[in-house]
This record gives sequence, structure tokens and C-alpha cells, in this order.
Amino acid sequence: MFYEVHVKGFTMAHPDVPEALRGTYAGLAHEAALAHLVDLGVTTVELLPVHQHVPEAFLGGRGLTNYWGYNTIGYFAPHDEYSAEVRAGRPGGQVAEFRAMVDALHDAGLEVVLDVVFNHTAEGDQDGPTLCFRGLYNDAYYRLYPEDPSRYEDSTGCGNTVNVSHPVSLQLVMDSLRYWLTEMGVDGFRFDLAPSLARDDRGFDRAAAFLDTVGQDPVVARAKLVAEPWDVGQTDSYELGRFPPLWREWNGRYRDTVRDFWRSHDGLLGDFAQRLTGSADLFGGDGRRPTASVNLVTVHDGFTLADLVSYDHKHNEANGEDNRDGTDDNRSWNCGAEGPTDDPVVLALRRRQQRAMLATLLLSQGVPLLLGGDELGRTQRGNNNAYCQDDDLTWFDWSAVDADLLAFTRRLIALRRGHPALRRHRFLDGSAAGALRWSTPAGDEMSAADWADPEARAVTLYLDGHAAPDRDDEGRAMVDDDFALLVNGWWEPLTCTVPPARPGRRWVGEVDTFDPTTPPAVDPTAGSAGTVVVGPRSLVLLRSAPAEG
Amino acid sequence: MFYEVHVKGFTMAHPDVPEALRGTYAGLAHEAALAHLVDLGVTTVELLPVHQHVPEAFLGGRGLTNYWGYNTIGYFAPHDEYSAEVRAGRPGGQVAEFRAMVDALHDAGLEVVLDVVFNHTAEGDQDGPTLCFRGLYNDAYYRLYPEDPSRYEDSTGCGNTVNVSHPVSLQLVMDSLRYWLTEMGVDGFRFDLAPSLARDDRGFDRAAAFLDTVGQDPVVARAKLVAEPWDVGQTDSYELGRFPPLWREWNGRYRDTVRDFWRSHDGLLGDFAQRLTGSADLFGGDGRRPTASVNLVTVHDGFTLADLVSYDHKHNEANGEDNRDGTDDNRSWNCGAEGPTDDPVVLALRRRQQRAMLATLLLSQGVPLLLGGDELGRTQRGNNNAYCQDDDLTWFDWSAVDADLLAFTRRLIALRRGHPALRRHRFLDGSAAGALRWSTPAGDEMSAADWADPEARAVTLYLDGHAAPDRDDEGRAMVDDDFALLVNGWWEPLTCTVPPARPGRRWVGEVDTFDPTTPPAVDPTAGSAGTVVVGPRSLVLLRSAPAEG
Repeated sequence: MFYEVHVKGFTMAHPDVPEALRGTYAGLAHEAALAHLVDLGVTTVELLPVHQHVPEAFLGGRGLTNYWGYNTIGYFAPHDEYSAEVRAGRPGGQVAEFRAMVDALHDAGLEVVLDVVFNHTAEGDQDGPTLCFRGLYNDAYYRLYPEDPSRYEDSTGCGNTVNVSHPVSLQLVMDSLRYWLTEMGVDGFRFDLAPSLARDDRGFDRAAAFLDTVGQDPVVARAKLVAEPWDVGQTDSYELGRFPPLWREWNGRYRDTVRDFWRSHDGLLGDFAQRLTGSADLFGGDGRRPTASVNLVTVHDGFTLADLVSYDHKHNEANGEDNRDGTDDNRSWNCGAEGPTDDPVVLALRRRQQRAMLATLLLSQGVPLLLGGDELGRTQRGNNNAYCQDDDLTWFDWSAVDADLLAFTRRLIALRRGHPALRRHRFLDGSAAGALRWSTPAGDEMSAADWADPEARAVTLYLDGHAAPDRDDEGRAMVDDDFALLVNGWWEPLTCTVPPARPGRRWVGEVDTFDPTTPPAVDPTAGSAGTVVVGPRSLVLLRSAPAEG
Repeated sequence: MFYEVHVKGFTMAHPDVPEALRGTYAGLAHEAALAHLVDLGVTTVELLPVHQHVPEAFLGGRGLTNYWGYNTIGYFAPHDEYSAEVRAGRPGGQVAEFRAMVDALHDAGLEVVLDVVFNHTAEGDQDGPTLCFRGLYNDAYYRLYPEDPSRYEDSTGCGNTVNVSHPVSLQLVMDSLRYWLTEMGVDGFRFDLAPSLARDDRGFDRAAAFLDTVGQDPVVARAKLVAEPWDVGQTDSYELGRFPPLWREWNGRYRDTVRDFWRSHDGLLGDFAQRLTGSADLFGGDGRRPTASVNLVTVHDGFTLADLVSYDHKHNEANGEDNRDGTDDNRSWNCGAEGPTDDPVVLALRRRQQRAMLATLLLSQGVPLLLGGDELGRTQRGNNNAYCQDDDLTWFDWSAVDADLLAFTRRLIALRRGHPALRRHRFLDGSAAGALRWSTPAGDEMSAADWADPEARAVTLYLDGHAAPDRDDEGRAMVDDDFALLVNGWWEPLTCTVPPARPGRRWVGEVDTFDPTTPPAVDPTAGSAGTVVVGPRSLVLLRSAPAEG
């Protein structure tokens, strides 16, 4: 699973990282920082852009900078500002320091994936500065309007678009990917606004030169490849599910559905069920697998999880654009008060909402992406576009950790890692029939009418740990316990009938997002497997354990 | 320069190659075979297909086989029939034997380029056998008609077309290229019917996935890449001059023009001049160089040079198709008698025609391709489509060598290798103005009217060896002697005025295709550099030597 994090923000305020290393590659590689990742249990660290970048000029005028770094000028250089070596007066030292960081992460059992921004550069549009490619071979590196080649096409919202259809740009991108894999040792990439790399003059094309070239490359095709499957400024730029089999995709539909479901919107139960089981509707063709779906509820761009349950509206005044920047499509719910509050009812609801969404994320088929800090209850005080905030708004505040939430998240991740039934390699249909069964809270099989009911908000998912198991690397069947996931999207508690346990097994409560401190108890009644009360807007996970012992 | 040759045919009848090695990779690597190539002075051996191939079934019924081998079934295997190891009962030995052959050629100072056939396979059309890819992933490996996917598109004349637009086929082709370069050590490829690899649903596209992928590949882009820039069966399949800068192309226009010019067709002088100086009209854009033009007069497909001057018509009866197969567009001239003759006038004319075309080929800017055996006077008895003839029709007959022609060819090649002015890296225009001057036989500058005159058949080309010289690997200017090339396409001798020699220099005769035994003498007359009599359908090359000594 992915843990999305900013190199600088992760340790800039970390008390156990030596001050000279805070906010640097060496800081991220420090044992105090690594310990958090290892204890949490994530497997892949996805770093916000580390290619050399520069801030936009207008930010300087506001006393701001570009913190996120989606503004590249050098595709072969680790950003120097994140280097303790450079800071200590050893320019060029960032290369070895970055490499050492990758080694340290590998030694800790973690993969490293880079967020790479090949769709545009910091040179921006026709009014931007000449920093790199513009002065070398403008019409090879950038898409220009055919009817007016003095102007730049913009499918990135940043003023220009790199023309990866051109052989020169294509080679630049491919050489960069090969460099970071072979020389710097990273394990893969998340491609920012990936359709901008896969568009020819007829629009998005899954046989575009870039995708074909990646697919046949002996080095790059073996890396982890994740698309952000949309871009901006052109029509038809939402390409979720359309990338080739090799690729994984950020599942934006997952985010929208999970957010809306847990604020009890109507008519989402079927959609939610698809998201929970790997989004076969999006990725079920071409031999793709559930692992093509990178499930996410929050990412760097938008609200943090804590803010998602604390704000109805963005609060971006600090960005200097009178709160006009940032999306208004947040699908957030402040749970009864906007922002900080002392109201214990609101605060309790917010905690339950965070747990419900974290549990959904970590119990869904597919690959979860956790926004770094969400496990700590990190807030950005309602700023949903903190790209220009390089301060305590964005830096991890290790003195304000929500210890209960962190413990809850760790438990969920450990559960996921321990149980192959929760992270299947194949979609549970066809030959795997029976591995997955849906029922109503009353215990009946879900009918078409049940799925179509816009008022339906609760469902039980039975995962058979024995049916059609995946194989491990040695070819052994990964038979697992069975699970029952009881989902209640209502605002009232719901008594749910539990599916019958396999003979010789009994259900034990593993997760209850309503009250994580008290394991959910199954109430057996005659002639039935029993019932469980699932709290409002909550889910319960049961695991089949041996009946005796 | 390229020497196109068939592994088997080159040594199958070579008396100095041990019998067990004749016709094999080891035979080609034998010192007796290598000596011919080294003495001749060629730099690159281009092998007809060596990927594992099978004959078409109908050939077996005629007692014939597929000799050329444009009928691949295995893109990762050296053809086993050319292996002395396999012949000796050691199956699999062809791999090491092929590798050793490449090493031997390299040790002899020769590059190895493979003729590769990725456009179709031996499986042929819907009525063909299932031999390799058809049974694995038919619609990924082959182009099918969208309206009737039971039928195969055919842009190759062989029944099917490999679908290199598909990522799976693209990877197959790229993996094969990388394999032969990195594991087998070859230096490059000649791509049979290359537009079939570079066509998408809009037709030929120089930004097709295959061309883009090759262009960015760290291994393949560094190899020598030669396109046969046409294919068959579809419209617009003559793409000469349209490949990307990285590529060289077989210059079919060169062949047509040179053949027609020397049989004294009208209106070709300007065209001939373009061919002689690197075909800037075809390759002058996109930063391409004259070396993009692979000049050729004859290749395996069509008449040999000896047959080109001995036959007006093809004589393909032995192929079993009543002489219907093979092209009728031969642009050949039998010089007065069809086929073998004792007429000394005809024979002398044939020898002169061979020399005129060989001299043209080897004195043109660009990269010459010599059909192996043309230097020996090799005949195929009028068969212009000997693909199915695996016998003494196609095997080199080392007992019937035209020693005079061989000596003449060697001299031309040595002259070319010794003089950078004869093989410029850049087109002689623009900044190189003055390096190249055209004049009439009377010594006047060629006017537009002279070029436009359809009766014009003679011209003098002055090559300034001092002007705008190329640089060698150490950056030194490769200043050279000057040359004057006097071309007479008339059927009568012509007295040509020689351009003035540089001060301190005088002209010496280097080549006279009319009579190679007597160096052409420059007849100096007062107030002029002198004149030379150029024989009918002949050319003379003069070189500026120091005036004294």
C-alpha cells in the first residue's frame, strides 16, 4: 500500500530527527522517521515531486513559495532544497544523499515511488520565463497551437504541456525514468496528469507512443507505474479505467463514492460495493486485476482526512487569492460545526467518520493509498490547496498526534497485511464464484431491487477465505479465514444478521469503527449465526476463528 | 558501405572453405571467405534473413524451397540450416556459432547488419498454417480486417501483416532487436518493407509507435537502422525520404535513375545529379545527412548487375510459375543480345555498362550498397526473383570470377575509402557553397536551361576537397584532394573541358569506365585546364595531384 508524503513536511518538525537533517532526504532516511513508517506497516512510500523545481514568480510576491513542487525544471536532478548535504555547503551532494535515502528505505523493507511531473514544466506559458527547454527546442518539447505557434496548449492548468508525442520529448521522459530506476534505485512512479502524456491529436489513446514505449521497455515496464488518470483544460480528460493492463490508476471514483456514502447520500450502495471489491466495473477488462485500482479517500491535493470531517468549505485565504483557488467539490461534512470546536458530540462524530473511511480504505480490494498524516489526525486548518504553504500548516506536527487514530490505523494495516482474503490478486467473479456474497442486513441475498433502491444504505459482504485463493510465490494456495464486513450507512444503529460461519468456525469481532475499544460481539440466536448491532455510519468486520480455542 | 550477401550462397561453392563449413555461419567466418570481403574493402556485411524461417508449402510441391528466408517463424533464433554445428548433429549449436561468426567479422574489421522481416510471418493468411503467433494471440500479432476479423490485412504480399501497433507485437519486435544487438553482437538492421511497421490506421506515420520507440531506446537507437521504405498492397506505400532522422533508407529512386540514365533515357540529367550527390531532394530536411541515402543499383531482389546488362526480360521459368512471378520493371538492357552471347561487341559493351554503374555507385555521396557477387560478374541466368532457388543459380560460383571487374571494383572502393571528399557527412550546399560545382562538357557553368534540356546527357562535377571539410573523430578537418567527375551518358565519345585545377595542382586520371586499363590523359591546351575524351556511356574521374612530383 502507498503512503503519500512530502520529503520536507514529514520531518521538518520531527523532534527525534537531528535538526540538521530535518526536512531532508537524510531526515526521511533517519531511523526516527523510518520507525513511524515501519510501525505503521505501509509498504510503499510515494514521495511528492523530488525532481528539481522552482516556485512561480507570483508566489514570491506574496511571500509564499511552491511547496509541493509540481513545477519541474530538471528531470535528472534531486531537488537541492531537500538535501542536508547542500544545506551544509556541499552542492551536488543531493545525488548521493537521495541514493542513500532510497537504500535506507529499502533496508527498512519499504519501496520508493516518485510522483513525477512530465506533463508540464516550470517555464509555463508564453508569458513565462525561459528556464530549460524553451530555449533549446521549443516546438519539440511543448505542444503549441498549430494555428498560432506562439501560444502553448495547456492540458495541465499550468500554462504549458510537454509534447511527449515528439520523439525528442519522449526520449527525455524515458531517459529520466530509466535514470531514476537504474541509477537512483527507485521502484516506480506516479505520473501526474498522466493523460497529458498519452494524448495525440485525436485525444487520449491507450496506444499512444508513450504508453507503448513504456510497455515494451525492459526497465520501465518492470517498475510500479501509477497514473493520475485525468488532466485539465481539455475535453474527455477523465480516463479512469482506460490505461493499459500494465498500469495502476488513482481511483478518483473511489474517493467520490466513499466520501458521499459516508455522509449518507442516496443511491450509492451499489457503487460503494464496486469500490469495496476492487472496481471491476472500471478495471475488470483486459486481464487487469484489482491491484490496478489505487484506492484513495484523501491525497495531498484537497482536504486531509481530519479536515474532510471538520469543514464543509475550503479555507484557502492564506494562499493569497481571496479563497478562489482550490476545488469546491470536496464532498466533505463538518459534522455539525465548521472547523475547530469543543462540542464533544461533533468531535466524537468526526472521529467515527475518520475511522469509517480509514476502515473502508484499508479493507477494500485493490491497493490503498494513505495520505501521510491522516493516521495522525493531521489538519491543514481547512486549506484544501496547500501547494504554496511551506510552514506548520503543511509540516507534520508530531506534537499533536491522535494516538487512538494511529493505533486504529496500525491495527487495520496489520489486519490487511495478515490476510490475503482482504487483498485478492484477482476479481472475485467467474471462476471465483462464491468467494464473495452480498446480503441484506436481514440476512437475505441482495436482489436487483435491493441494489436499485436509492434508500439502501447497508449491506453485508461475506468473503470466503477458502474459495479460489491466490497463490503465493511458491505456488501455495493462500487459504485464509473468512470475513464478514457489515456496513451501515444509516444515521441510526442497525441490527444486522451475520452470515452463517463455516462449520467448526465462529465469528469474532475484529473491527468496529463506531467504538474501536470494544470488540463487536456476535449475538447468537437459535437457528441463525446471530446478529450484530452496527453503529450509525459505521462498519464492523468479523473474522471466522476456530470454534473452540 | 554495405555488402548484401546470403550466408549460404556466399560459401556453398567456395573451394577454399572446408566442405563441412560451406554454406554456414562458420563458413562465412572462415578466413577464405573473410579474405574476399577484406580485400574488396567493404565495411558492413548485410546478411539476408537469418531468423529461423520455413518454406511455403507450395514450394515443396515444386521441388523448390525458400532460399532467401523472408518467411520468419522465430525472431530470437538463428536459422538452423545455416549452422555447421546443427549439421554435425549438435542442435542448438547455431547460437554460439552465429555469435562466433559475428566476432570473426568484427575481428576482420567488418560490421554485421541483419535483414529482418518483422512485417509478416510464415503463417501467411487465413488459409496458412498455425506455426507460431496465430495460436497464441492472433489479433494482437496480426492486422485483421475490422469488418471481417477472420481475414488478414496484407501490406506485405505475403498474406499477413504483423500488427506492430499493438503493444504485444511492439514488445516482441523491440525485444528481438535488443536481443540481436546485446546478446548476438550485431551492429544494426535492414528492415524489410519497413512502412508496414510504421503504419497506423491513418497510414504511414513517422511518429508511429515503432519509430518513436526505436528512437528513444538506449540500445536500438545506437544501432545502424536501414529502412526498405516501401511495402505492397496498400496505397501510399512508397515512403522514400519520410523516415525520421535516425534512419537510413534504401534509395529506390537511385536505382531507377542510375539504371535509366546509363541506358541513355531522356531527361534524367538533373535527377542523376541529385543521386550522385546524396539525394538532398529526398533527405535534405530534418537535419538528415547524405549518409541517410543507401545507394543501390542491384539487390538480391531483381537482376544481378551482370544480368542487368545481359537481359531485357526476366527468365523465371525455373520458379514454376510460367515466368509470371518477379517484376517486369527491370530498367535493364541486354546490350544487343538476350542472355549469353559470343559477340565481342556486345560483351565489351556489357562490361562497360557494369563498370559505369559500379563507378557511379561507388563515387556517389551517400552510402553504397553492393549486391554481393556483382564484383565477380555473378549471373542468375536472367532470373530476377530467385527466392526459391537454392542451388548453383544463386550460390556464388568462385570458379567463374570476372577478375578484371573484381580488380576494378576493389580500386573504386579503395579510392572511396581513401578520400573523404567522396563520402561527405553533410550535404554540399549552404555553408558548404563552392564545395561542389557543375559544368557543361564545354566547361560552362550549368544553367537552368541546361538542366531542363531533356537531351542533356553529360555533365562535369567538380568536388572541392578543401571547402567545408568534415571533421574526423579528433576534430581535425579532413581536407582532401579535389576531384572532377566527367559523366557522358551519350552513345558517342565526348570531349569534355576539365575545370581548372587548383594552383600547384594538376589533374591525374583515376578512373575511366570505358577503358580501365589506360588512365585517362588530360590534354592541356593553352588558356585552359585541358580536355578529356570521355567514352560513350562512360565516366572519368580525375584527381588533383601536386603539380610536380
